[in-house]
Amino acid sequence: MKKLLILPILAIYVLVHSCAESSSNGKDYKDASLSIDERVEALLPLMSLEEKVAQMRIFHANIGVKSDENGKLILSERVVKKLKIGIAGIKNPGEHIDAVAAAKLNNELQKYIIENNRWGIPALFVTESYNGVDAEGCTKFGRPIASAASFNPELVKRQWDVVGREARLRGMHMCHSPEADLVRDPRFGRMSEAFGEDTYLTTQMVTSAIKGVQGDYEGLGNGTHIGAVAKHFAGYGQVLGGSNFAAIEISERTLIDEIYPPFEAAVKDAQTLGVMASHGDLNGIASHGNPALLTGVLRDDWGFNGYVVSDSNDIARLYYFMKVAESPEAAALMGLEAGIDIDLYAEDSYAYLPEMVKTNPEIEKLIDRSVRRVLRTKFILGLFDNPYIDIPEVEKGVRAASSLALAKESDLESVILLKNENEVLPLNKNKSLKIALLGPLVKENTKAMFESVTGSNIKYVAEKGFNLTDGSKGAPNLLEKDPKAIAKMVNMAKGADVAILFLGGDEHTSKEAFFNKALGDRATIDPVGAQDELIEKIKATGKPVIVVLKHRRTLSINVIAEKADAILDTWDLSEFGDESTARIIFGEVSPSGKLPVTVPRSIGQMPFHYSMKEINYKKGYLFLEDGPIYSFGYGLSYASFEYSDLKLSSNEITPYSEIEVSVTVKNTGKVKAKEVVQMYIKDEIGSVTRPDKELKAFDKIELNPGEAKTVTFKITPKMLEFTGLQMTKVLEAGDYTVKVGTSSSTHIETAFKLKK
Amino acid sequence: MKKLLILPILAIYVLVHSCAESSSNGKDYKDASLSIDERVEALLPLMSLEEKVAQMRIFHANIGVKSDENGKLILSERVVKKLKIGIAGIKNPGEHIDAVAAAKLNNELQKYIIENNRWGIPALFVTESYNGVDAEGCTKFGRPIASAASFNPELVKRQWDVVGREARLRGMHMCHSPEADLVRDPRFGRMSEAFGEDTYLTTQMVTSAIKGVQGDYEGLGNGTHIGAVAKHFAGYGQVLGGSNFAAIEISERTLIDEIYPPFEAAVKDAQTLGVMASHGDLNGIASHGNPALLTGVLRDDWGFNGYVVSDSNDIARLYYFMKVAESPEAAALMGLEAGIDIDLYAEDSYAYLPEMVKTNPEIEKLIDRSVRRVLRTKFILGLFDNPYIDIPEVEKGVRAASSLALAKESDLESVILLKNENEVLPLNKNKSLKIALLGPLVKENTKAMFESVTGSNIKYVAEKGFNLTDGSKGAPNLLEKDPKAIAKMVNMAKGADVAILFLGGDEHTSKEAFFNKALGDRATIDPVGAQDELIEKIKATGKPVIVVLKHRRTLSINVIAEKADAILDTWDLSEFGDESTARIIFGEVSPSGKLPVTVPRSIGQMPFHYSMKEINYKKGYLFLEDGPIYSFGYGLSYASFEYSDLKLSSNEITPYSEIEVSVTVKNTGKVKAKEVVQMYIKDEIGSVTRPDKELKAFDKIELNPGEAKTVTFKITPKMLEFTGLQMTKVLEAGDYTVKVGTSSSTHIETAFKLKK
Repeated sequence: MKKLLILPILAIYVLVHSCAESSSNGKDYKDASLSIDERVEALLPLMSLEEKVAQMRIFHANIGVKSDENGKLILSERVVKKLKIGIAGIKNPGEHIDAVAAAKLNNELQKYIIENNRWGIPALFVTESYNGVDAEGCTKFGRPIASAASFNPELVKRQWDVVGREARLRGMHMCHSPEADLVRDPRFGRMSEAFGEDTYLTTQMVTSAIKGVQGDYEGLGNGTHIGAVAKHFAGYGQVLGGSNFAAIEISERTLIDEIYPPFEAAVKDAQTLGVMASHGDLNGIASHGNPALLTGVLRDDWGFNGYVVSDSNDIARLYYFMKVAESPEAAALMGLEAGIDIDLYAEDSYAYLPEMVKTNPEIEKLIDRSVRRVLRTKFILGLFDNPYIDIPEVEKGVRAASSLALAKESDLESVILLKNENEVLPLNKNKSLKIALLGPLVKENTKAMFESVTGSNIKYVAEKGFNLTDGSKGAPNLLEKDPKAIAKMVNMAKGADVAILFLGGDEHTSKEAFFNKALGDRATIDPVGAQDELIEKIKATGKPVIVVLKHRRTLSINVIAEKADAILDTWDLSEFGDESTARIIFGEVSPSGKLPVTVPRSIGQMPFHYSMKEINYKKGYLFLEDGPIYSFGYGLSYASFEYSDLKLSSNEITPYSEIEVSVTVKNTGKVKAKEVVQMYIKDEIGSVTRPDKELKAFDKIELNPGEAKTVTFKITPKMLEFTGLQMTKVLEAGDYTVKVGTSSSTHIETAFKLKK
Repeated sequence: MKKLLILPILAIYVLVHSCAESSSNGKDYKDASLSIDERVEALLPLMSLEEKVAQMRIFHANIGVKSDENGKLILSERVVKKLKIGIAGIKNPGEHIDAVAAAKLNNELQKYIIENNRWGIPALFVTESYNGVDAEGCTKFGRPIASAASFNPELVKRQWDVVGREARLRGMHMCHSPEADLVRDPRFGRMSEAFGEDTYLTTQMVTSAIKGVQGDYEGLGNGTHIGAVAKHFAGYGQVLGGSNFAAIEISERTLIDEIYPPFEAAVKDAQTLGVMASHGDLNGIASHGNPALLTGVLRDDWGFNGYVVSDSNDIARLYYFMKVAESPEAAALMGLEAGIDIDLYAEDSYAYLPEMVKTNPEIEKLIDRSVRRVLRTKFILGLFDNPYIDIPEVEKGVRAASSLALAKESDLESVILLKNENEVLPLNKNKSLKIALLGPLVKENTKAMFESVTGSNIKYVAEKGFNLTDGSKGAPNLLEKDPKAIAKMVNMAKGADVAILFLGGDEHTSKEAFFNKALGDRATIDPVGAQDELIEKIKATGKPVIVVLKHRRTLSINVIAEKADAILDTWDLSEFGDESTARIIFGEVSPSGKLPVTVPRSIGQMPFHYSMKEINYKKGYLFLEDGPIYSFGYGLSYASFEYSDLKLSSNEITPYSEIEVSVTVKNTGKVKAKEVVQMYIKDEIGSVTRPDKELKAFDKIELNPGEAKTVTFKITPKMLEFTGLQMTKVLEAGDYTVKVGTSSSTHIETAFKLKK
């Protein structure tokens, strides 16, 4: 069987390659001693128009790439036909098989591709990877919003380094991750895929993720890592009403000062190989048809020279959904002119380009521009020279013990202690305790994971009680209240010493929404179902109530915040999540996560993030307590920290100087713990209205009981820049306040002046 | 006493005027035969710097203008001192006394002012007037949001004509009304002061209001009407979070296409004498310090040549609140340079200008610019020539029978029938019925007003039951549920044939909010208190339930919409509101109001208005029914209407042609009724994303049973313009759909093409 398959391939190879030469302009693109640009320029003139356009399209493996029961590659006729002229890339080949099988399949697939297009151009195999490679058998980390809570970019980098390595080992070359969007509206179903509300925190996390997944760029050519695609450019987190695909309405100033920086850093600092455009239109202009954005800002201003890929079918959508193009062909031209290099999936968009060149020969220049970018990426990734995976490496490299340990380490730094009345936490694992694990977010293995942490002293009972929804695909429905289930859990709590409630939301209450097909955004952020009633009744038993929050969007946990004795906010941790949570509950580690978002009391307070202008952040509403339930950067510890001696190296800064800030942080508690020391700056007066404060630096430190450390930060002129009245960056003389502390709402402060 | 007061005034007059001349450049500003510009130019050079700046300030009468028990003018020392150099204007003199007394007082005050400044410059007396002159003893109309529901601009014009006349008769010259803001966020406490969510409807209503209150401009010089001040320029309705004073974040394109048009029409079409700036900052730039807005757009682009007044204290706020100016003096300069001509109230802003000129002589040119505008206004209003009110006219002119009748007429056109299950309405006043008038919005005179409409056949009981709040000033609180009150009302309903429930909100649940002082905005729009429970229990009695909604913000009346048999949405009608409602309930008139806003199911659906892009308007959320409860333009009738024969004079339009649209509307019901025929246009494909549809014309017609009329509209190229990719107005070839019907969601449609 094997031979039968290879023979015809070889036959085609000989046939195709006999009529093709691998050089033009006297240089051979196969010559690895040439520069990448030279190789690209040598290859491009050899290619036919159809071959070029093929390098601008990615198809999904589900249209006809699979393996038989022996792991052997099977291609549909449609795929075979496509691959004859090459392809930019294929999404998710082998996603449902284990890493070794996937690596073998992808080797075979790559070989087939190389051998079946005239120039032997390899394909990019693409995945998503926001919490681990989106494929069978890879390490599953916590979601980005949980990573953000760690306030530990170094840890995030190590995590994404594992992702990059595991992906490359299974034959992948690019990931459509990370998200550089700011998520400030918890109605948005994709909130957990990004790093929170703050520009600076997101920037730190996104650049760490890209550097990690790309192996500090060097891993690309080394064949150990994969290329990143920062998405969704730009403003996708700001869709109106938190509604996926919706319009984005935002001022140019906010775009520049708040939304662009994570993308700019992804390009300039982290050297992302790719960027993906956004579903939404930006102030009326469809992002996929926006040359000012995709070419002006991204390339002319920031010097990006990787490729821009469309979001799924979004070039075609310029016609049939956004209705800004008069035909599929006009949509294709619009995307091409704007600067989209690769059309993701659509059969009715860039597919038309070869035909369009006949009447509009000028556009071949734009096609060449895009093809260069794609070829360049393939050369950077070394795919022309080393296209295949070394199979023996795969097994030891994927799900290595160190990777699984890292997933646990990340969890432990990501859990946020929101409340700890009377120091109910940590529990003592040396005591004999009966614990009831209760509520809709209890998983099948929750009890086992807790037991693995505490041994036999602690006895558990576990009961999920009820589901949050009926789990229907597309549009899940809420369920009727189940009083029996609640009564059962109340009885279990009565019989226990402590109740741990697992509340929040699940994969059905927050997910990516597709217009008219699937719902995932919400109009309220109250916990659904009988969760509030559950905690009220459990609380009434008089037993200590510890809440473990699991969720993928911010929830207005008014009742939980009032009733719980302790709250551990875990967002959505790794595959070892409940084990990690147990470790924290039993005090193996003190929690050190901080909120990467503001927690509002009501969706009616939106927009609501800590760095708004003072009037917006501190607004009051009738019949509602002021402010958030918990503020950005907030998170308690089993220790306590004293901030003192906030000092500046100078109380004056100029455009050519910096200030060093130092602060002493002392662990005044009884346990070793980590603390995120946060520095915010407030520009007291500006020519445009200025944020109430902005996070400008943070540092996560570890302190033994009684230990004190001096943390230093730098204030640079760059940190104080903003987009002024004339829409250029300005640095304004005047008064600034620096606030250093444990959250955006608790800090000590001092002042300095900027002089020009 | 009288003589004693007048003598010193005359003495000062002689003293002052003896050393002043009334001419410069050979022309005398007192010469009424000169043009206004000539008179202004003759006067300005005579004035001292202090006198000029005095023409740029308005103070509130509450700082020291009142009358004694005999109605005699009493001025505080502070006011006397101010008036020695003249004043631009005084807000609300005589507001708490009746019209005749106010007219006398204001005559006396004006005389004092004229006689006590060197040049005899009269003052502007200023009021607010959005639902009638904001003063004792004037006709009180429905609020603008209710007027908007009439969809009858001609009626609105007549209403504001009465306002203008009553105001002038009591001695006023300007009103800080109407609001040209779009109110699209029902969290905003001032929602009822404006004309709803739609650009076109608001434009029609605002221009009608200005033309009415200014007596088609001619009333200004005739001394019969007052000048309008269109406010708040610009974007004030779009404050983030519906929070007064908050920032406004909006794209330039939306500003131009949706927010500016009512203001542009106020200037160009209705010739408003004044414009007021907005509290909020617009995309980071404080509106009171925004020359591009207040001078560029308003004057350079639109040719406005009236004056711009600050909102209360907002120039000083540039320093102490917005923090965009480094000092009070810098704030004053910022306001002056931006184009604010009059400083409303502040003592610590334009008051500094004379001193500032010493170090910065250049700014006197800007002062002159503003003073010219103020003087010009006073000349336009004829105040130099005829400053006094003819007292005998006042009594017959204010609260004339025709004005009170007009208030009732307006009410009858403003009530919106949202639901009428099984044609429960109208009730038959010839039947013997027992009716229970129940609920928190029942007023002391509700029963009497109903009785006045129905005579003795109908017997009433009335019970308010409970208040919505404790009525605390500043921050009212919700009250505990009162089960006894609910039980009492349920019993009253049981004893009656029909229950009419008065539900909604009151003056405490929706009002202007002041930062840190008073709350008025809300984070939810659910009906407060036990109102949902009340209707559920009354409904359970089995008696027909008619709901009369009174409110000042849109409410998400999910339960009411489900339980009520009929709903009359009355917003906030005139002083005769309950009488008008009774007339409609008993079928004297068929309701003909239409919703001037979209009614969302939840605040979490915001932003949500019918003219959004399709994806935004038609979005879906988990666990929430799609769409609004009621859509913009919706409103039922006691009749029914059939739309047919939608015809276009051509199915093609060019930049130089128009299309005439005709439609036949037939009353297929049993009663005479009015109907608002609405025309919406959808641009199917645009270079920028286009609205789902936009109201472009409407006509309110009256039809007898069985009668049919042909309604015609024009489609002009201007209607199809929008701000294109290059931020200029474009007219794009392609397909358009015209939709004509009874609401934004129910219509018949046809298509046409634009060819260039």
